[in-house]
Amino acid sequence: MNEPHQPNRLNRELEGRVVVSLEQAVAAPYCSLLLADAGARVIKVERPEGDFARGYDRGAGGHSVFFAWLNRGKESIRIDLENPGDLALLKTMLQSADVFLHNLAPGALARRGLGGDDVRVRCPQLINCQISGYGADAAGRKAYDFLVQAEAGLCAVTGTAEQPSRVGVSLCDLATGLTAFSGILRALLQRRDGGGGIDLSVSLFDVIGDWMNMPLLSHRYLGGAPSRLGLTHALIAPYGAYQTADRKQVLIAVQSNREWRALCEGVLQNPALGRDPRFADNPKRVENRAAMDRAIDAVFGRKTRAGLMASLERARIACAPLSSVQDLSHHACLRNLDIRFGGATVSVADLPLQSDAERHREVPQLDQHGAALRREFKP
Amino acid sequence: MNEPHQPNRLNRELEGRVVVSLEQAVAAPYCSLLLADAGARVIKVERPEGDFARGYDRGAGGHSVFFAWLNRGKESIRIDLENPGDLALLKTMLQSADVFLHNLAPGALARRGLGGDDVRVRCPQLINCQISGYGADAAGRKAYDFLVQAEAGLCAVTGTAEQPSRVGVSLCDLATGLTAFSGILRALLQRRDGGGGIDLSVSLFDVIGDWMNMPLLSHRYLGGAPSRLGLTHALIAPYGAYQTADRKQVLIAVQSNREWRALCEGVLQNPALGRDPRFADNPKRVENRAAMDRAIDAVFGRKTRAGLMASLERARIACAPLSSVQDLSHHACLRNLDIRFGGATVSVADLPLQSDAERHREVPQLDQHGAALRREFKP
Repeated sequence: MNEPHQPNRLNRELEGRVVVSLEQAVAAPYCSLLLADAGARVIKVERPEGDFARGYDRGAGGHSVFFAWLNRGKESIRIDLENPGDLALLKTMLQSADVFLHNLAPGALARRGLGGDDVRVRCPQLINCQISGYGADAAGRKAYDFLVQAEAGLCAVTGTAEQPSRVGVSLCDLATGLTAFSGILRALLQRRDGGGGIDLSVSLFDVIGDWMNMPLLSHRYLGGAPSRLGLTHALIAPYGAYQTADRKQVLIAVQSNREWRALCEGVLQNPALGRDPRFADNPKRVENRAAMDRAIDAVFGRKTRAGLMASLERARIACAPLSSVQDLSHHACLRNLDIRFGGATVSVADLPLQSDAERHREVPQLDQHGAALRREFKP
Repeated sequence: MNEPHQPNRLNRELEGRVVVSLEQAVAAPYCSLLLADAGARVIKVERPEGDFARGYDRGAGGHSVFFAWLNRGKESIRIDLENPGDLALLKTMLQSADVFLHNLAPGALARRGLGGDDVRVRCPQLINCQISGYGADAAGRKAYDFLVQAEAGLCAVTGTAEQPSRVGVSLCDLATGLTAFSGILRALLQRRDGGGGIDLSVSLFDVIGDWMNMPLLSHRYLGGAPSRLGLTHALIAPYGAYQTADRKQVLIAVQSNREWRALCEGVLQNPALGRDPRFADNPKRVENRAAMDRAIDAVFGRKTRAGLMASLERARIACAPLSSVQDLSHHACLRNLDIRFGGATVSVADLPLQSDAERHREVPQLDQHGAALRREFKP
């Protein structure tokens, strides 16, 4: 094939980098999953009883499917920080490491001679990245994803008018792991230009604080945070879910008066509605939302979702089905990846950045690489 | 001060890099905000009428506060892609660029000689990053954050038993912008080792597909996706919100039987409850949730939130207040940044990765840097 300008894609660009990750649960393991996927060698240091995420569930032939998703492509070693020999081994590993990642409680490392100042004496080039709940100074406060969602106001803007709700994925953990990953990449770029090691500290609260800017700025400058309205947008209409004849739901988003007229003409078959002064612009449509919804429901409720979506797409109205998790599992756009954990195969949703490298597929058992690592890094 | 091992922090490590971003709305502007914050020069190319996000609201002295948050530190130029002179100017700018970022509808660029193959003829080293809704191949489908939330099943796991809900922040857009940022950093690291330009394509659906792994794997391997339970965790108990005497809510998270006993002894003042076989382990507590909640409510409902949280923290039980957006706005951990847009000052939540560089604070008016850029990049 003659493809003169075929571009490269990402291809294990972190090959040769060594990451030592003293990690548990979700945020730091997700960060080191991304590092491993980009080609780094990731040594997962586990407490004697193992990362407690190994016990989250038993879906992968007795092992945890959640753990499998977050930990493929890593080497596992069991380390007892109370054991002097183990502690010496960890310090030796850090002397060969580019990155030291950890999400232990603040203070736990300093007590064992693994604080920032200690590790930099031996390894001045080390990128030292701490993940915490509320910042390095808020020592001792336990932070779980759901608690941070609540404390940062995210639950207050999610749910129905009556009931604030948790977001159904651990987005504080995941956003923090991804932010830490971006910080480590930035530090690798910076370190190349000389200079010593770099300290990074990422907190779940800071990450979600930034992501809360839209409701926060609404509160500060626009007269209040947006209302919780379930599957309806508070400030734009029509923008939300409507029921179809086959008892499914379809979401539509109308972002301009031109699109409103296209909806009335092309889908509702009612051009007069497009000229109705009650619905002439978005503020009027929000004000007269109940009457507008009745007009839409009267038509949508007589059509199947598939037929309706076809006519919405012909009219160039943005639309989407309301999917169940089962619908997602069979969605044509979902890219799956089969990974292996012991004898079990687990089909996970793949990472979004595609690469020319083969994906890692093996999930380590606890201490699977312990003996080899102890030989390699003998203090 | 004698601080022998004072580490570096991030400090404009992308200085000297040039990013041309043909962008609108949220996902790509958030990505280029992160690039600008890391020191890159970001040229924001706007359609003749401007990024439509400029019209999202009028909270910053007539300008949009949302636009302000997403666009500080960039140079703005108005470009009409239908005008041959403007198109030539854009192509000249791309010859000096390290990164070409865009979130126009797929196909819109190729029609104007700005497709991947076209730009690489002139600029073989270019990192070309496309952000789309459902992938480069799903041409023409409009994708808004809320629609992707619904289609990817996120709304199905968020909300109450009766009512699925939208997540109150644009997390698909933000997660995609951050993922694209990490991809561009990876590409910059890879390009340093030789080789030509790199193509990246990031879709909102792929990003949120990965973030849906927990409910997806629950569905596939654990008997079903977790139920929607408002502010209650489906699989762990007690884990959720309880009302206090002063009509506030506090969330607690009990993750072990040891913590359950500590709650009963130290906070509920009822050691016998800690030994009650109905609540002996997490499966039993989930099964007998109603009785457990009555016992907790009886005590929590008689205490103020402040007093309760103090005793929870003494007992080492993870807890958090349920915050409103107003509470967030005054939270002691929130780091604010004052930015300037025309004559107005806007106080936003700062980015989570701290740096030794001064933050950008100026938000560009439409075409504010147009004349200077036209001189600099005269075709």
